[in-house]
Amino acid sequence: MTMSYPENILVVGLGLIGASFIQALKQAGASSRFLGSTRSPATLDMALKQGLIEEGNNDVAEASASLQAGDLVFIASPTLSVPAVLQSLKPALERGVIVTDAASVKGSVRDAARAFYGCVPPGLVLGHPIAGSEKSGLQAAQADLYRHHGVILTPEEDTDKAAIACVQSLWEATGATVSRMSVELHDQVLAATSHLPHVLAYSLVNTLAESHAHDEIFEHAAGGFRDFTRIAASDPLMWHDIVLANRSAILQQIDSFTSGLSTLREAIEKGDSESLLAIFSRAKKARDDFSDILAERKKK
Amino acid sequence: MTMSYPENILVVGLGLIGASFIQALKQAGASSRFLGSTRSPATLDMALKQGLIEEGNNDVAEASASLQAGDLVFIASPTLSVPAVLQSLKPALERGVIVTDAASVKGSVRDAARAFYGCVPPGLVLGHPIAGSEKSGLQAAQADLYRHHGVILTPEEDTDKAAIACVQSLWEATGATVSRMSVELHDQVLAATSHLPHVLAYSLVNTLAESHAHDEIFEHAAGGFRDFTRIAASDPLMWHDIVLANRSAILQQIDSFTSGLSTLREAIEKGDSESLLAIFSRAKKARDDFSDILAERKKK
Repeated sequence: MTMSYPENILVVGLGLIGASFIQALKQAGASSRFLGSTRSPATLDMALKQGLIEEGNNDVAEASASLQAGDLVFIASPTLSVPAVLQSLKPALERGVIVTDAASVKGSVRDAARAFYGCVPPGLVLGHPIAGSEKSGLQAAQADLYRHHGVILTPEEDTDKAAIACVQSLWEATGATVSRMSVELHDQVLAATSHLPHVLAYSLVNTLAESHAHDEIFEHAAGGFRDFTRIAASDPLMWHDIVLANRSAILQQIDSFTSGLSTLREAIEKGDSESLLAIFSRAKKARDDFSDILAERKKK
Repeated sequence: MTMSYPENILVVGLGLIGASFIQALKQAGASSRFLGSTRSPATLDMALKQGLIEEGNNDVAEASASLQAGDLVFIASPTLSVPAVLQSLKPALERGVIVTDAASVKGSVRDAARAFYGCVPPGLVLGHPIAGSEKSGLQAAQADLYRHHGVILTPEEDTDKAAIACVQSLWEATGATVSRMSVELHDQVLAATSHLPHVLAYSLVNTLAESHAHDEIFEHAAGGFRDFTRIAASDPLMWHDIVLANRSAILQQIDSFTSGLSTLREAIEKGDSESLLAIFSRAKKARDDFSDILAERKKK
């Protein structure tokens, strides 16, 4: 069965997420014409020169002016910029253009849509690819970034079914596995699995950098530390946006983590072997089970 | 220059650390005869069958009875078992056998030596290879485990110079880079770079495993989470031993981390963009600098 791609796909934001999306669809044989919009003239230039996009415009409203019903806009710009982009797309949405996004937080995007449109427009399919890298930018793009990764869509009850199906099939063409959940659950799950770990890694590395034994610490740190802190090399501005956009869920996760750590601290202080072994063993089992989930995912 | 290896090397504990040490030395062309001692009859059998060791004995005192001055014992058994092993090696130490260890905590080993011998015997060279894996056991051994890794020796002022040189050259033969520091600094540095990250990873995974959204959390976690929590799959008993052996330094590190996290939490709650960007940027810079250190290390 041949898939029918939108005639035109406009990608707003040509960083790792947006550019990898285009590369993945091209590799999948998408027949679409790709347009791009990004605030950086240098990035737009590079994307045109590389042939990643056929047409580019720094202004989202202008870039989307020619789009018609059935065309698609993928918003892959920083989380806090999504509300303004959504506003610029009002005429396009009204013409029946499908719009989806990649913001790491869905509640803040939905709030912005509601504030501007009074509701989430039926042609707007909120989504989030669970993929990324501590590298960023157009030059870090890769056609297989989404392969074996999950994409979560968080449609509303009245979101257009055809729009959801279109967005879902595009993501599947990139090699991703698509699932659906509510905005609330998405933001809770991401706070736990992604936002909290980034906060912890940033906080740990920052605290160690301030330590008087700073030099010895970084000189003698090894593999476990390298993996544990890799995400602290992620883009600070992007993570600033994310923690503010998902503030309440992240605060909840920090508090829940802090309370667990305090229990563990007490067990260490008391030399409570039984509790220590119980905590470490339960964690190891959960982590081993998670490895199995990852292995299953790769097999698919 | 040909290196002169000890005639006999007894390795106590034939898990990942001990067995990899033997494999690495054999690969380096060591002329030594390798003996092994471990409490598990099955492991001892397997090590003999594989030809890893030429002679094995479950009892450390018996295994070391034939060793003479210039021979070497490498204690690679669990941290909390080291004191008892040290006691069994009293006759060997008195005959001039060199003894070294691999325990992740040096203060507790030094305390045990002092309690039994009244001092750290001159032939006892405390050491710690900064290498490992979340896998453990004889079957996980690899000849290049120590390559490009650091080994920290923490000799006393009156430790025998020839013994230090012997231990250092053996580690260098495995491909490791040897450095020296005080027991106190070692235990602080390791608490920061290894023990604290393990405690945080165990605690995070344990807390998430107890969450009501447990299934969704592990179903949708991605690459960053995988790397961040990999160390939570480490051996619970080994880490139980380590956190108890280095209790006070780890408690200090937990407190320092908790205080940093609380500052970051406050910045998130207040929406304090400036502080958030400062913390994330400082952490990213320290982590990027650490990547450079790792890259330099590999070049050597």
